[in-house]
Amino acid sequence: MPFKTTLVDEATERTAKEYLSKGTQVRCVHPQEAPEKITCQYDEAFAVVGVLDEAGKAAEEGYDGVLISCFGDPGLKPARELANIPVVGTAESAMLFGAALAQRFSVITIPQSLVCVAEDIAKLSGVYDKLASVRHLGSQAFEMRKEQKVQRTYDEAIRAIEEDGAQALVIGCTGLLDVPAPLQQLLREKKGYDVPVIDPVGAPVKFLESLIALGLSQSKLTYMAPSK
Amino acid sequence: MPFKTTLVDEATERTAKEYLSKGTQVRCVHPQEAPEKITCQYDEAFAVVGVLDEAGKAAEEGYDGVLISCFGDPGLKPARELANIPVVGTAESAMLFGAALAQRFSVITIPQSLVCVAEDIAKLSGVYDKLASVRHLGSQAFEMRKEQKVQRTYDEAIRAIEEDGAQALVIGCTGLLDVPAPLQQLLREKKGYDVPVIDPVGAPVKFLESLIALGLSQSKLTYMAPSK
Amino acid sequence: MPFKTTLVDEATERTAKEYLSKGTQVRCVHPQEAPEKITCQYDEAFAVVGVLDEAGKAAEEGYDGVLISCFGDPGLKPARELANIPVVGTAESAMLFGAALAQRFSVITIPQSLVCVAEDIAKLSGVYDKLASVRHLGSQAFEMRKEQKVQRTYDEAIRAIEEDGAQALVIGCTGLLDVPAPLQQLLREKKGYDVPVIDPVGAPVKFLESLIALGLSQSKLTYMAPSK
Amino acid sequence: MPFKTTLVDEATERTAKEYLSKGTQVRCVHPQEAPEKITCQYDEAFAVVGVLDEAGKAAEEGYDGVLISCFGDPGLKPARELANIPVVGTAESAMLFGAALAQRFSVITIPQSLVCVAEDIAKLSGVYDKLASVRHLGSQAFEMRKEQKVQRTYDEAIRAIEEDGAQALVIGCTGLLDVPAPLQQLLREKKGYDVPVIDPVGAPVKFLESLIALGLSQSKLTYMAPSK
Amino acid sequence: MPFKTTLVDEATERTAKEYLSKGTQVRCVHPQEAPEKITCQYDEAFAVVGVLDEAGKAAEEGYDGVLISCFGDPGLKPARELANIPVVGTAESAMLFGAALAQRFSVITIPQSLVCVAEDIAKLSGVYDKLASVRHLGSQAFEMRKEQKVQRTYDEAIRAIEEDGAQALVIGCTGLLDVPAPLQQLLREKKGYDVPVIDPVGAPVKFLESLIALGLSQSKLTYMAPSK
Amino acid sequence: MPFKTTLVDEATERTAKEYLSKGTQVRCVHPQEAPEKITCQYDEAFAVVGVLDEAGKAAEEGYDGVLISCFGDPGLKPARELANIPVVGTAESAMLFGAALAQRFSVITIPQSLVCVAEDIAKLSGVYDKLASVRHLGSQAFEMRKEQKVQRTYDEAIRAIEEDGAQALVIGCTGLLDVPAPLQQLLREKKGYDVPVIDPVGAPVKFLESLIALGLSQSKLTYMAPSK
Repeated sequence: MPFKTTLVDEATERTAKEYLSKGTQVRCVHPQEAPEKITCQYDEAFAVVGVLDEAGKAAEEGYDGVLISCFGDPGLKPARELANIPVVGTAESAMLFGAALAQRFSVITIPQSLVCVAEDIAKLSGVYDKLASVRHLGSQAFEMRKEQKVQRTYDEAIRAIEEDGAQALVIGCTGLLDVPAPLQQLLREKKGYDVPVIDPVGAPVKFLESLIALGLSQSKLTYMAPSK
Repeated sequence: MPFKTTLVDEATERTAKEYLSKGTQVRCVHPQEAPEKITCQYDEAFAVVGVLDEAGKAAEEGYDGVLISCFGDPGLKPARELANIPVVGTAESAMLFGAALAQRFSVITIPQSLVCVAEDIAKLSGVYDKLASVRHLGSQAFEMRKEQKVQRTYDEAIRAIEEDGAQALVIGCTGLLDVPAPLQQLLREKKGYDVPVIDPVGAPVKFLESLIALGLSQSKLTYMAPSK
Repeated sequence: MPFKTTLVDEATERTAKEYLSKGTQVRCVHPQEAPEKITCQYDEAFAVVGVLDEAGKAAEEGYDGVLISCFGDPGLKPARELANIPVVGTAESAMLFGAALAQRFSVITIPQSLVCVAEDIAKLSGVYDKLASVRHLGSQAFEMRKEQKVQRTYDEAIRAIEEDGAQALVIGCTGLLDVPAPLQQLLREKKGYDVPVIDPVGAPVKFLESLIALGLSQSKLTYMAPSK
Repeated sequence: MPFKTTLVDEATERTAKEYLSKGTQVRCVHPQEAPEKITCQYDEAFAVVGVLDEAGKAAEEGYDGVLISCFGDPGLKPARELANIPVVGTAESAMLFGAALAQRFSVITIPQSLVCVAEDIAKLSGVYDKLASVRHLGSQAFEMRKEQKVQRTYDEAIRAIEEDGAQALVIGCTGLLDVPAPLQQLLREKKGYDVPVIDPVGAPVKFLESLIALGLSQSKLTYMAPSK
Repeated sequence: MPFKTTLVDEATERTAKEYLSKGTQVRCVHPQEAPEKITCQYDEAFAVVGVLDEAGKAAEEGYDGVLISCFGDPGLKPARELANIPVVGTAESAMLFGAALAQRFSVITIPQSLVCVAEDIAKLSGVYDKLASVRHLGSQAFEMRKEQKVQRTYDEAIRAIEEDGAQALVIGCTGLLDVPAPLQQLLREKKGYDVPVIDPVGAPVKFLESLIALGLSQSKLTYMAPSK
Repeated sequence: MPFKTTLVDEATERTAKEYLSKGTQVRCVHPQEAPEKITCQYDEAFAVVGVLDEAGKAAEEGYDGVLISCFGDPGLKPARELANIPVVGTAESAMLFGAALAQRFSVITIPQSLVCVAEDIAKLSGVYDKLASVRHLGSQAFEMRKEQKVQRTYDEAIRAIEEDGAQALVIGCTGLLDVPAPLQQLLREKKGYDVPVIDPVGAPVKFLESLIALGLSQSKLTYMAPSK
């Protein structure tokens, strides 16, 4: 969790545990050096070194994998160079689920500054052709109560489906962790839209578990180990 | 398993079980109507109705998900229309793992006729930009012993890496089920290539388990239920 | 004609004959096994084996080519593997005409389930960059009289041109066979839009005639003959 | 025929006639202003005004369509603006046949300067994804006898198939008019490659005939009539 | 300036001089043969030979580079074959600046006929992925006073930003030369949109100056010298 | 210069000055916090905060623009958010020159770890379609004398041209600063290849000068100012 605020710790742990296989243990950590929260690429820049520090420690301490729990995937690629255990990002994993389940998906995030970030991750992950749009709630949504967040996300989801052609939704911010389940239900009940809503903690957690179970990790030809 | 031959049953079940989470149960079925084996799109055509039959039965009998265990993904899209439980394909799932773990991946299959099939699945899955090549061993490989299969796959893997720029490998045929682990080891030992080799049973099994755990299924806007 | 209903037989034969070169003879056949009509990929799945059966017979009986007259192109690729005479699909042929005549074209079909099918065919045919949109009338249009069909298609055509940027139109359903000519006229008279409206029987019939005249057929490296 | 040399007149007329439907008449014309022959974009530049002059005259004199018989398609787009009858290019038409018949095709042309021209036409026609490569024989091939041309084209065809992954061939120069038929035969006999070889006169002639029969012409939203 | 009208000479020279480095000298020339003005591809066709004539003379007279000052870039590619000094086009250069400064840019031009031309140039320049849209004012804008031009361009700019997702603007016609600066200011003051507005004379002039300073010119493998 | 080593200071300053317009002044700075040198994404991660620090200071001290002189463009996007003056990267600028001057270009860099980095920058810059390949000399080249560097780069350049289809070359490492001019000459003399060789200091310096002269900067809709 590459930021200082502990506001989403409880929801992140709860969500992760909800989806974990039996026997998997998760530890949430915040790096010592980190921005208060992440709302743009400038914030992300101050998160990277802390991410690497924690990823390195995790590998040394015998953890089986690392998840960078922030939708901008800060430090994902250098951490993959550093570590010999699989490292997954939130956005990349969640978008791959979106690409697999629908012809086109939209991402809904909070800050406008992260729209281009999400587009760039889709381009580099190879799923840009299936990205219908990236929509944002605006930074005031960080302060909303859960019901408001669900309502605002619902409004953008309807636009994504009806104007942009989305057929699945990726929730693009760990500040919206309790939104996916009620949103999926609302869309079905109010409009009859039976579409998958992909959770930005659940999807990467399961993807990481899968890699560990399969004995797979990032390619060391793509992410070569740094020379000492 | 949309073909009649039971030659790969044992290996498929063994592989699936190796990777399953605790509590997951797998049942392998062959449809009543099916081609002897699948080596081209003509064969696949005769597999589709049987796949739909079994997918429909699985949904009725309370199974949580369906995996079509053949690299051509025959019947995947109509089965997704039919069923209200998640349906995953072998090729689509395995290629998404390839796209996530490396800058470029190659598929290695057995029959030459399936080269274009694999390319088409990559195009429709949105990961064609990351597909370095599809290589084939030739249909005689169906008859080879395990050691020969590993050796022939290794030869093509080296070409994929050194000539085509692959940095991960997707094993593109359920007739090569015992190849991934020894291949990954050979590449590391002989050449120092530390690349993920993705198993065509393990990857879709884990992907399907993840969908089930997350309560996700294919979008019903993409795969609309057939009208009665 | 890979469906049981004979409702469009008369219009299909009439349209085909209107455009045929002198000396060309056409025979319309329905396979023995076929769905009543085709409105989704699930229906298409039940059409494929019948298509292959008829394509095989056509080749044996000395026909010069095969046209699969349904916009989903069911069985096109396996039929191309099977037959040594050219086999063309409705959608693929019609879209190539659209790509050749305009910067961007839209497809207008009847059932919503075929929207993704048409998009997939455009992706695999290589003309997706020129596809402005796929619009649908909704399945109730199957029951409409000709005037209503023309009017509803006109409404969608205007949206395709004015909202999606289409500059040519492909009629994407053999249930709309009498629409192209009056539609093209309406667009010119009411709005001054002088755009080609491509007929889903005429275009593939002429394309198939051209292949036969030129002695060309599908590549047997792409569509390899099934091993016996 | 937007050049002065009449060297290929006889072969062009012979080829066109071989493929024409009964009742179609063809007239080959050279514009008054034209370069001696066309080997680069600089030559093409001097061909355009003459093409427009002849296309305008053809429309006035009641011809049903215009074919610009040179693989660089000089003047194609302005002629489409000018004329109210369909205007087709050699390269665009031939490549659409290539895209329809195979997963990937290669173009084989004579002068190296036209390699980029052919690539650009593929990009603008929307079939670049299916273009395996553009190969050239070198300008000395203009002077070769037919047997030598066939042999040199065969050599490049083998490279296109075996090194570039081509599964169909487009003959990309009207200076190679007698090559397609013997080349197709050689490939089959010597190597067992049963691939379509597309003729740069035959394909556009049949495509133009098809448009005329179907009452179709270029979109006047893409190619707007010049204001007087 | 590949047209006869001298209406924009003064604005072009003034704009060019405003941005020139010390020591650079510019000479604006109109070819002897040229259309009155350029509003479509048909007009452009009559501009090409004159462009080549002037580009050839410039190279002989010791000029260091050539700029074709018209947004359709008429004659750009043959001129690059002909000349051994760098030749740049207006549209290609301006769009590269757009691609470098924003995630997505829109072009705003005057005549509707040039919309497809601008799209084609984006495709061939490789920046089509970053092109949000091409909007046009309509040919009546040629006759407008400066204030009207600014207002109409502002209206389209707002649509480009708010409907098409543009984050930078390329002014796509030398008939809008005095628009960029006031437009950029209006967007900032009225809406708070701090976006680059790229000038169709300034950007190519600076790009050409850069090439000359760096000793770079077009590749002679892409643009091979015409054989004599 | 986002690294500690001062080995390339002299060459960078010399190169920059060679290409500067009269009146432009350049100051080279190394951030306080920086890795010794940059050979992979892990190294880059430690360069970003220092880059932001210096970019912020430059904006405050009244500099007109910032160039990040390292081919991985570390910190480019967050610096563009932070600063109100134009910020350009080495790789992005150099590749835009490559895309403008040729049909396809190759990048030649030193460390293998930067191959994927360069590919990613091409994808995000929109010029990936024109990227023929990224080749590397291997890290031992950091230690080579100039003559050896030229020779090794020449060898890779020949492969890029003859095997990968490159028609322009981008030198992708500031450790190869003295290579472009002699390489361009060698290619012409030894092989007759008259291709542009783009300098990784010269190209971005001139591009930044152009932006400053034109009053252009990065879009603040793409790179929104961080909230305080």
